Amino acid sequence: MKKIRLIFLGILMLPLVAPAQLKVDQDRLEQLIFDLAKFGLQDNGETERVAFSDADIAAREWVIEEMKKMNLETKIDFAGNIIGTRKGTDANMKPIAFGSHIDRVPNGGNYDGCVGAMAALEVMLSLNEKNISTRHPLEVIIFSNEEGGVMGSRAMAGHLGKNALSVVNSTGFSMGEGIIRLGGDTTKLKQVQRMPGEIAAFLELHIEQGGILDRENLDIGIVEGIVGLKWWNVTFTGFANHAGTTPMNLRQDALLTAAKFIVAVNELTNSMDGKQVGTVGRIKAFPGAPNVIPGKVVTSLEIRDLSSEVITNLFDKIRQKGEEIAKAANVGISFELLDTTADPALTDIAIQQQIAKTSAKLGLSIKKMQSGAGHDAQDIALIAPTGMIFVPSKDGISHSPKEFTTAEDMANGTNVLLNTILELDKKLN
Amino acid sequence: MKKIRLIFLGILMLPLVAPAQLKVDQDRLEQLIFDLAKFGLQDNGETERVAFSDADIAAREWVIEEMKKMNLETKIDFAGNIIGTRKGTDANMKPIAFGSHIDRVPNGGNYDGCVGAMAALEVMLSLNEKNISTRHPLEVIIFSNEEGGVMGSRAMAGHLGKNALSVVNSTGFSMGEGIIRLGGDTTKLKQVQRMPGEIAAFLELHIEQGGILDRENLDIGIVEGIVGLKWWNVTFTGFANHAGTTPMNLRQDALLTAAKFIVAVNELTNSMDGKQVGTVGRIKAFPGAPNVIPGKVVTSLEIRDLSSEVITNLFDKIRQKGEEIAKAANVGISFELLDTTADPALTDIAIQQQIAKTSAKLGLSIKKMQSGAGHDAQDIALIAPTGMIFVPSKDGISHSPKEFTTAEDMANGTNVLLNTILELDKKLN
Repeated sequence: MKKIRLIFLGILMLPLVAPAQLKVDQDRLEQLIFDLAKFGLQDNGETERVAFSDADIAAREWVIEEMKKMNLETKIDFAGNIIGTRKGTDANMKPIAFGSHIDRVPNGGNYDGCVGAMAALEVMLSLNEKNISTRHPLEVIIFSNEEGGVMGSRAMAGHLGKNALSVVNSTGFSMGEGIIRLGGDTTKLKQVQRMPGEIAAFLELHIEQGGILDRENLDIGIVEGIVGLKWWNVTFTGFANHAGTTPMNLRQDALLTAAKFIVAVNELTNSMDGKQVGTVGRIKAFPGAPNVIPGKVVTSLEIRDLSSEVITNLFDKIRQKGEEIAKAANVGISFELLDTTADPALTDIAIQQQIAKTSAKLGLSIKKMQSGAGHDAQDIALIAPTGMIFVPSKDGISHSPKEFTTAEDMANGTNVLLNTILELDKKLN
Repeated sequence: MKKIRLIFLGILMLPLVAPAQLKVDQDRLEQLIFDLAKFGLQDNGETERVAFSDADIAAREWVIEEMKKMNLETKIDFAGNIIGTRKGTDANMKPIAFGSHIDRVPNGGNYDGCVGAMAALEVMLSLNEKNISTRHPLEVIIFSNEEGGVMGSRAMAGHLGKNALSVVNSTGFSMGEGIIRLGGDTTKLKQVQRMPGEIAAFLELHIEQGGILDRENLDIGIVEGIVGLKWWNVTFTGFANHAGTTPMNLRQDALLTAAKFIVAVNELTNSMDGKQVGTVGRIKAFPGAPNVIPGKVVTSLEIRDLSSEVITNLFDKIRQKGEEIAKAANVGISFELLDTTADPALTDIAIQQQIAKTSAKLGLSIKKMQSGAGHDAQDIALIAPTGMIFVPSKDGISHSPKEFTTAEDMANGTNVLLNTILELDKKLN
């Protein structure tokens, strides 16, 4: 029945060129999501596709093939971003860009990033199918290594520094090595940068990872701002010794100290008013044997908030408390700021309004909201008018194999994306 | 000068067959330690030789070659123990055995186990050199995988259960797989077992890992008892979710819960009178990314004491507290007892007395003590009269690359070992 309706609408709408009610093919979109999830599929039925992995590279090759089938002009830029361009009718127009990422966190799900990436392909398929041309060139961008520090979008915004290239993700590859694996060139990252004015507008569709839309039974989230984040490595240096012969009171136990620090991070984050979050997600203890007191532990520390001041303030408290804990245990502590920082970002008001109008025309309920997650849109907002469209994620689950968004919700978001692009194409110069 | 003295003594002593003042070759012993440390030597100058690793296998092949050069009858038993036998003159006598291990903890040192193993070889070299024959056959035993759960000695004592074979060490190999790698046979472990009476006496020389001998400037420790130990895996099951979008109060953070547990293990262990030790040395967080709340954490838990009741009592307290902590955090917790248990063991009184007498004849100072570390001798004590000789370890450091014992201390201990063997050979039937 859905298909019949779509065909009917298609016939109705074609003469209008860019009608508000234009609809994408929900089944085709869902199939793209299924096809993408095959890259990195494990024996346990879950998919692993961390940036720079063989699975990531295979998925990227598949995306490029699909883009070519759509007659997009495709390239990999020097930061490993995949860009597929559909020509516009007006040679004076700068591109309207949209997209997301297909790399995943370890043990992640099939929807984070993937929905926005596949929706972007579906938009192109729908436009081709309906023979709709636009004044602006349209660019699908599949950003490289979003999860490991929004690498591709930072390079495009011109602030992927040299230091970032040494940050290693769970594949064991550094960003620098990963860029080479993806077909980029670390010596030419400057050329990846787009200057303000070079992109007419940027849109990203993404699952809403906070669970608000799902809880409140709403269709579309319109993102007003994206929180900033900072990452640190925290290193605790004690003394490795025999667990059987070293009395409790003579130990310099790096793991015990790290454990007290992890508890303190949680307490200090909770002690402040506001929505800031502080997380220790990674820990390694050395040498890591049951019968050896750990001599060294390295943990991650992540802080996010909409205010840079809050991030700095909370970190100062955490560092001070960490130093107290370590000193009392006769253990060393050091903090290394990783070059994966993202500043808080605001989206473009006019684009927010357009997304709201388009959603209304499509009969979809909306909510304006902030994004607690970082996104490629955050960096692109520095160089182009940017909008973000959220669709519900069941129970707000993300970064987990249990992540799930219905095909209908994905299609709703993609319809908003498609029609917003067409409206912006009419309005923007 | 030392060599001249040794030759002189050799001439003097040969007619007496087994003089108390017999001395080993200190330089040759030290060279054996240096030679052994080459197996697994890394670029950073430290050696890694965890049981079942390629380095472990290469070192074992070298030991077997050295044994063959000493005309020992060598074999690998079905549990991977290397046994080198020197014939006795009396066919009715059961062997006097001595030895230790050459496998190491991750990031360990050159002396733990290695001193006892190389001392055993040096004893054989000294006896050969001086043409001394014994009534009892003499067996050097290099036990397999001591550090990963005294595997070889447990098999010899007849209590390496089926469950133990699935315990995996840091090489990634299980004990069962490791036994195959070492040339053993997991289906024939029963044949490894020695019955009470089959070994006349067992002696192990080892570094003293508590630092008492070094602190008190003593030469020889005579071990009265060896503490028992139990290992558990503790699994915390929370829910992996996005660290940016999941508010602090909605998290089921497995790592935060594990951190509170690690602090509690320390507090509870300290809260009891006595010398019990409780250690968390290993931790893994899944998925282990800075921007994902850990959904699962697995830690080790080790408890040691001279009393099995104290171990059980402390564990009960830790389990109860762990369950409270986990429940409050809405996180699951489970404890899995690993099959690496060692019961507290006492050494043979007559052998203790003989070690003391021999030490006195050699002009060495002694101290009777307990061993906080587990040893192969602990299991062999179940099936044979057993003695343990400790030599100082600088600052009591062990399970660390900084482990160090002087050549003189090693030679002192080996002299005690050699002369105690010769005395036992005279006295035991």
